[in-house]
Amino acid sequence: MKVDGHHYRSVWLTDDGLSVAVVDQTKLPFYFEIRTLRTCDEVVLAIKDMVVRGAPLIGASAACGLRLATLEDPSDDYLQAQALALIAARPTAINLRWAVDRVCSRLLQANPKQRADLALKEAQTICDEDVDNNSCIGSHGETVFVEHWRAKGSKNPLNVLTHCNAGWLATVDWGTALAPIFKAHNAGIPVHVWVDETRPRNQGAALTAWELKAHGVPHTVIVDNAGGHLMQQGQVDLCIVGSDRTTRAGDVCNKIGTYLKALAAHDNGVPFYVALPSSTIDWNISDGRKDIPIEERNKDEVLYVHGIGADNVPTQVRVTTTSEALNPAFDITPKHLVTGLITERGICAANEFELLKLFPENRA
Amino acid sequence: MKVDGHHYRSVWLTDDGLSVAVVDQTKLPFYFEIRTLRTCDEVVLAIKDMVVRGAPLIGASAACGLRLATLEDPSDDYLQAQALALIAARPTAINLRWAVDRVCSRLLQANPKQRADLALKEAQTICDEDVDNNSCIGSHGETVFVEHWRAKGSKNPLNVLTHCNAGWLATVDWGTALAPIFKAHNAGIPVHVWVDETRPRNQGAALTAWELKAHGVPHTVIVDNAGGHLMQQGQVDLCIVGSDRTTRAGDVCNKIGTYLKALAAHDNGVPFYVALPSSTIDWNISDGRKDIPIEERNKDEVLYVHGIGADNVPTQVRVTTTSEALNPAFDITPKHLVTGLITERGICAANEFELLKLFPENRA
Repeated sequence: MKVDGHHYRSVWLTDDGLSVAVVDQTKLPFYFEIRTLRTCDEVVLAIKDMVVRGAPLIGASAACGLRLATLEDPSDDYLQAQALALIAARPTAINLRWAVDRVCSRLLQANPKQRADLALKEAQTICDEDVDNNSCIGSHGETVFVEHWRAKGSKNPLNVLTHCNAGWLATVDWGTALAPIFKAHNAGIPVHVWVDETRPRNQGAALTAWELKAHGVPHTVIVDNAGGHLMQQGQVDLCIVGSDRTTRAGDVCNKIGTYLKALAAHDNGVPFYVALPSSTIDWNISDGRKDIPIEERNKDEVLYVHGIGADNVPTQVRVTTTSEALNPAFDITPKHLVTGLITERGICAANEFELLKLFPENRA
Repeated sequence: MKVDGHHYRSVWLTDDGLSVAVVDQTKLPFYFEIRTLRTCDEVVLAIKDMVVRGAPLIGASAACGLRLATLEDPSDDYLQAQALALIAARPTAINLRWAVDRVCSRLLQANPKQRADLALKEAQTICDEDVDNNSCIGSHGETVFVEHWRAKGSKNPLNVLTHCNAGWLATVDWGTALAPIFKAHNAGIPVHVWVDETRPRNQGAALTAWELKAHGVPHTVIVDNAGGHLMQQGQVDLCIVGSDRTTRAGDVCNKIGTYLKALAAHDNGVPFYVALPSSTIDWNISDGRKDIPIEERNKDEVLYVHGIGADNVPTQVRVTTTSEALNPAFDITPKHLVTGLITERGICAANEFELLKLFPENRA
């Protein structure tokens, strides 16, 4: 993705390999700022405070964090402690654990003196793989988009609804759910995107709309309540969302509110796709509702809304006089509501049999 | 409802009968202010700008507005023009048309010299009837609540989810969906309310939470995205909402997002009730999706969020950098998703046959 003509990734190791640079997503959409993280602890905090967010991106960021940890102290004890701290920063997303486990297990097998170099290489590989995987997801998704666009006569724009931000900013580059949108748009398919605001943190209104505007993709922001009505009115051709964790049976854990849109899609015969790199699949669990812990975030995210004031200064407003609020961050979309899973290896139905055909190495 | 020990209605004709007093709902929840409207035009504006809102309340307010119109000019032409202006102020709610038609038709049959007195009496009657009807809705709904509470063992609180504000502030007094909550709470039934924020105007977080807090009813504000997850987790015993217009077949038009909660309730076996005075039933139409015009409001309601700043001054923040937004205000919940309609005459299934048993005067 480009910002003002300059190509950026959402996270990268600086040229000297001594720090991690990230696009500060708490400042977007009003300010585009690069933040430099110099210690693994700073990376943990950046994940916790959602300076970086999005399942694939926090996995890649954590891998970069472990590279910094090896510079601080390459001992087993220290790396294991930092690995635990990284994983604990966000409990729901599975890529975080996947990336940390992958880097950490390789580091612990190596001589401590070689760990810094190994961590650098491994973190860079994870970042590059994420970009490649998302590009593949984009290409597979693009074929789906083209089919649906042709099915409606190739005339009017294809109306796509998405929830939260599963774009460039949720990954190292390209995005998951937005990758097919960018690729289809680039290929000249007229795509229009309904952007769910995505309270409480408004990643849709703030980040997805910003990405689409930057890339020139036609879009319209709606409140989270509106998607069902638009589907009833035939104004949505397909839905596509990302995933924070997908079970081997195909249940999808994603941003709170995804389940409601999947229900509405099902009720109105609108296809509902989930785009995900396979690193978000948790092969150890099947039943999403039973087995995935749902992160509960600070209730202030509900009581307050962030934005920009009349003076163009970022600020927040309190929207209620009560102090009683609850803030579950994710929900589970059961597999029967999912039309297809779009992975880096192709598209499949949301069930164990079909997933294992694409990823046979995970057969029990 | 009482505020600081003083009993208020949401709208009333002042003692001299020369003006209309309303609780200014654009100032709530941060400021409780009474606003005096001195002309029918001011009433039209108050309805349009949502100084008063809620289907039953705007009907009652319009009736009071016509009283002011008779003082300005009791001629047929003027009253008919004012009637049209009142109806046009909000296109979706049916009580508005019902109340205006009721008052206007009686006025036009009378001698112009008698119209001011007649309008005063008729407006007061409509207000009093609204209070009585809502009290009856509250009593009928209370029996439903008691049944559900007993069915869960009469131990833990009954968890009720509501959307938008169908409380005291949406009516002249008591509310529709909140009336059973107030009555059950008053009767010692432990009720806990999940309050949907209800973007874009946040009537849930702002008004419903304020009413429940003022009345001492335990409650928790959630974002509109969260209700489906709570239902999946068994944390909602029943849903209850109001209605802006209900067809003779039982389709329910209510605040945007209601349909999504009805889908989630259906998917999780959670009863979904709609509380409504019969004045919100449109006996002329059956198919909600086809026959009810959905009001589209200003897109700034999506782009901005109102609240109170750190300095305790009401303000707004912009939540996105794009200017593309759409703001449909209502959606249709098809009758098969509705467990029961709670009316002033009792509770019935959401279909024409059962509705006509309660309201036989509307048989074709």
